[in-house]
Amino acid sequence: MRTYLECIPCIIEQAIDVTNQLTQDEEKREELIQKVLMTLSGVSYHHPPPYLGREAHRVIRKVLNNHDPFFKLKREFNHVAKKLYPSLKEKVNGSSDPFVYAVRMAIAGNIIDFGPRHHFELMKTIDQALSTKPAIDDTESLREDSKEASMILYLGDNAGETFFDKILIEQMPPEDIYYGVRGFPVINDATSEDAYYASLDQVAKVISSGSDAPGTILKDCSEEFKNLFDRADLVIAKGHGNYETLREVKGKKLYFLLMVKCKIIARDLGCSVGDFVVKCVENRAKGVGKTKQASAAHGIKTE
Amino acid sequence: MRTYLECIPCIIEQAIDVTNQLTQDEEKREELIQKVLMTLSGVSYHHPPPYLGREAHRVIRKVLNNHDPFFKLKREFNHVAKKLYPSLKEKVNGSSDPFVYAVRMAIAGNIIDFGPRHHFELMKTIDQALSTKPAIDDTESLREDSKEASMILYLGDNAGETFFDKILIEQMPPEDIYYGVRGFPVINDATSEDAYYASLDQVAKVISSGSDAPGTILKDCSEEFKNLFDRADLVIAKGHGNYETLREVKGKKLYFLLMVKCKIIARDLGCSVGDFVVKCVENRAKGVGKTKQASAAHGIKTE
Repeated sequence: MRTYLECIPCIIEQAIDVTNQLTQDEEKREELIQKVLMTLSGVSYHHPPPYLGREAHRVIRKVLNNHDPFFKLKREFNHVAKKLYPSLKEKVNGSSDPFVYAVRMAIAGNIIDFGPRHHFELMKTIDQALSTKPAIDDTESLREDSKEASMILYLGDNAGETFFDKILIEQMPPEDIYYGVRGFPVINDATSEDAYYASLDQVAKVISSGSDAPGTILKDCSEEFKNLFDRADLVIAKGHGNYETLREVKGKKLYFLLMVKCKIIARDLGCSVGDFVVKCVENRAKGVGKTKQASAAHGIKTE
Repeated sequence: MRTYLECIPCIIEQAIDVTNQLTQDEEKREELIQKVLMTLSGVSYHHPPPYLGREAHRVIRKVLNNHDPFFKLKREFNHVAKKLYPSLKEKVNGSSDPFVYAVRMAIAGNIIDFGPRHHFELMKTIDQALSTKPAIDDTESLREDSKEASMILYLGDNAGETFFDKILIEQMPPEDIYYGVRGFPVINDATSEDAYYASLDQVAKVISSGSDAPGTILKDCSEEFKNLFDRADLVIAKGHGNYETLREVKGKKLYFLLMVKCKIIARDLGCSVGDFVVKCVENRAKGVGKTKQASAAHGIKTE
């Protein structure tokens, strides 16, 4: 997905929020924002927003001379989610349909994010998510596909949200599940450390993207990651960043699980800010003649 | 007033709004925003926001190769205000206190502006303004000072708003009133043409600032304008841009008439977005020993 002009002030607002959190030095704040503006002035907006986010956060880390400015915040999110995990798991297991509720729980975890503007109303969101049918709801198709898949690549989003992902992965039948994380710290996105903290290695194989983008820019990823991505029968991708970077990938069945956090994504998905989404996308591979089931079912244009 | 970091995304959002209105060419839009970002990355934020606005709009005019991109919109505002003028004047003249209602009417005219984000709800704002006491209300002090003043400089803001200003100027006693406008087209700000369109020359002498800033950056103004500013017993300044650029001027009694359109100005004035303000400011001149009445009355710190 390209970056819309309206994404630019949003990325800058995020950078300002971050800057205000991380330094009290007015001169440093001004320098930081000026350098972010300079960087964003030189990037083509044909790239997806996480590409611009990657560039902006490289500048932020460099100016602050801090390779992981969100370490503390991620730790806090991890602690909160760890405490919640047993009761959340119980809610799901005690429900009428644990798979359906695990999917919704995984989406609720997507609120642990201070990228786009919103309030951190985790518990409210969890209860809301569990009782509301997603605005786009391909959960049944996901259930069937996850039964048939022999290898699933599940792409995480934020630290702490990892515990919510674990609840869903525990409902997945195949043994061969990979949990993808960012290759380097960027914003509050989950890296290997956060995945291990949530003991995701007990239910999946943790794999780093090899990239510091707050999304999955395949060109930017390690060969190992790209090979896994190619091999996966099914890719489950959490959050805005993964959606923005992967929704146009061809020849792969992808499920996007996210909470809609801005107008641009709402417009793109045809729903409203605050909606929960489980969306199957399967763009036809170049040169492949047959139209796959999901493309037809979900109205995806085939070439 | 310095530019706060939070002003930057707002200035960029304005530039995007403008860009979207003025060209359908995606490449041109991207080029324009990139150049605005580049420009804003090289400006010190110790300058007031209209300084950054001036720089951004110079870029916009240059990229669009259009010296007055808002010509049509200003004409539209002028036409709307011209039609409203007789009934607005009647409302004021028929009121219990025409001076008070003229002041409120002048503030209501400040809604003709698409700088900060808001809806153009002119008639609603007019009725609201007329029936509501301003959140900061130095109207009585303005009434007395305008009686005593031998020369008043009234600084306009936007095209169309000029008609609302005329209603207030018609309530002012002194014969020697100057109506200040921008020296060159910038956004929808009033220039001489707009002042003459509103026949402001019948009630005041129209004077150009000589500057293309959407505010009054004195350093940037013509000698003629600066001399007039120095000579004025009283300066009445409309809108955000004039407030941001003049509120720290020393040794001059200034009245700011505006509608609060953003959080930064709300915080600065200690009121809320949407509030109407009539605020007297008189910062003590350097080297002047006495503390003037207005400074004490309005809690302005003297050096």
